Amino acid sequence: MNIAIVGATGAVGHELVRVLEQRRTPVTSLRLFASERSAGATLAFRHTPHKVEPLTIDVFDGAGFDFVFFSAGASVSREFAPVAMRSGAVVIDNSSAFRMDADVPLGVPEINPEAIRAHRGIIAVPNCTAIILCMAVHPLHRLGRIRRIVVSTYQAISGAGARALAELQEQTRQAAAGQSVTPKVLPHPVIHNVFSHNTAIGPDGYNGEETKVVQETRKILADEAILVSPTCVRVPVPRAHAESINLTFERPVTVAQAREALSRAAGVRLVDDRERNTFPMPVDASGGDDVLVGRIREDLSQPDGRGLNLFACGDQLRKGAALDAVQILEVLRD
Amino acid sequence: MNIAIVGATGAVGHELVRVLEQRRTPVTSLRLFASERSAGATLAFRHTPHKVEPLTIDVFDGAGFDFVFFSAGASVSREFAPVAMRSGAVVIDNSSAFRMDADVPLGVPEINPEAIRAHRGIIAVPNCTAIILCMAVHPLHRLGRIRRIVVSTYQAISGAGARALAELQEQTRQAAAGQSVTPKVLPHPVIHNVFSHNTAIGPDGYNGEETKVVQETRKILADEAILVSPTCVRVPVPRAHAESINLTFERPVTVAQAREALSRAAGVRLVDDRERNTFPMPVDASGGDDVLVGRIREDLSQPDGRGLNLFACGDQLRKGAALDAVQILEVLRD
Repeated sequence: MNIAIVGATGAVGHELVRVLEQRRTPVTSLRLFASERSAGATLAFRHTPHKVEPLTIDVFDGAGFDFVFFSAGASVSREFAPVAMRSGAVVIDNSSAFRMDADVPLGVPEINPEAIRAHRGIIAVPNCTAIILCMAVHPLHRLGRIRRIVVSTYQAISGAGARALAELQEQTRQAAAGQSVTPKVLPHPVIHNVFSHNTAIGPDGYNGEETKVVQETRKILADEAILVSPTCVRVPVPRAHAESINLTFERPVTVAQAREALSRAAGVRLVDDRERNTFPMPVDASGGDDVLVGRIREDLSQPDGRGLNLFACGDQLRKGAALDAVQILEVLRD
Repeated sequence: MNIAIVGATGAVGHELVRVLEQRRTPVTSLRLFASERSAGATLAFRHTPHKVEPLTIDVFDGAGFDFVFFSAGASVSREFAPVAMRSGAVVIDNSSAFRMDADVPLGVPEINPEAIRAHRGIIAVPNCTAIILCMAVHPLHRLGRIRRIVVSTYQAISGAGARALAELQEQTRQAAAGQSVTPKVLPHPVIHNVFSHNTAIGPDGYNGEETKVVQETRKILADEAILVSPTCVRVPVPRAHAESINLTFERPVTVAQAREALSRAAGVRLVDDRERNTFPMPVDASGGDDVLVGRIREDLSQPDGRGLNLFACGDQLRKGAALDAVQILEVLRD
């Protein structure tokens, strides 16, 4: 397969190159693109240096790409993805540009492979928080039909990009040295702090991330009736998101049923050791492929057995972005 | 007033000394007690060094203490608080020993001063997470009667004591130097991680902290019908807890009504700037007396107007412990 990555120098772009290597994707040729500013850099793929080329409107025509990954933001996807598609490539888009388009599947291979296969040229990778949430709850949705989700997040800094991640490292050094920190990339101090997600707030009081979680969860789970109440928060963690999830079902679901369903779910790892007080943590999810799910317990505030609490954790750059994108490619190759 | 502090060398004990200084409490004499192991240290109070004495069963009798603060854990309070009380002192207890006793008030002066005044020798300071939660929601409870609270916390390390706080600083230095960290005081890595609260898990799956939040919230708000679904999580923050709070009311409460009530509430500061994306943060709450409340928005998943989301943040050592204790003393002096 001939593959291109647009936005190769970003945090997700780097991870895409790594995942393609690790999963031994049969890549015949790989071309890397980025903005004029970032072009010229070199990335290693299978021990071979690959130069990052500047993205222009004419790079797709006649290039023979089978798949083009986009991870350079919504405006780049809006401008260039249709061009890549017209050149004959299938576009797998990590941006928010097309996610809510009716004819674009929102692909999570463990959940909706049939929707992915029915694509019309573009498949969108969902928002990372929505992916991790849906991975944790879709096996339970099948058990008792989820009616309502209240979710509070503990989101990693990598979701704000490679420069934000560098800022976390810089502020870690400053805090260690007893220096005060001056935010540059993110709007508030990152180290030793938590803050409301750094996307703009809409007229309803919800930020951009929260609105994505509401809309995309319904689309991924293919159930427009699911009500979602999200609070998205950044924490000083490099790359794995955590989520505290409160569920209301149509039909009662027991803790034992939930554990059993999650232990069988592909891409999910049950981490639920009450005795050793060991549950999903960013340090354990980081760099891995599985979404960790645990702390499964009856919701004491819904005494009719229709409520559960759980805690989930997944690598935002892997299952939340690059891994999901490459898994979409794998569905289409099968 | 003659005052004693039992547990003077702990994180809360230190803060008690500071708060008594800052609030110009009319202290005639201050005596400091700690375990045999910690005794001998010296703490400054109003520029005068005070030696920490070993706590023994006979220090109270005839000492003439008006108030004794306990912050040395539940077992020390259980053994020594009744002795202090019998010596004629009023006990203000920061431990969990007596909190749920029917004849012990759970004191938050802004919420239940009349319960504090009706004490019978011991007043308990509630759990820090419960105090901050109740400070944020009690003005709203009066508006629409809260029926259900779903709360996920972002809890500071100081809540696990002075040694845990030192561990956060040590791991910050280790992470800055690129070294791996080895947990010693807390069970999991603190820096660049979040983990489920480090209290033991009960048979219902809830940890000790969560059980306290459920029980104490009902007692502080004097409403046994309030249902609480808590998830308590530690984050790498030194001393201010944050809480993501989802409320269900009996009667509809609008965002404007909630804002107005909170802006008038004593001990609460409204921090709710959607345009500048500025909401309650640990860095702003730390060292301060107010509980910060913001991100007030209608809960989209409760379309009948009976749901609100909010985010609160308060200094765990001040309003969550030492300040609340000294405010209780002030209620009794009035």
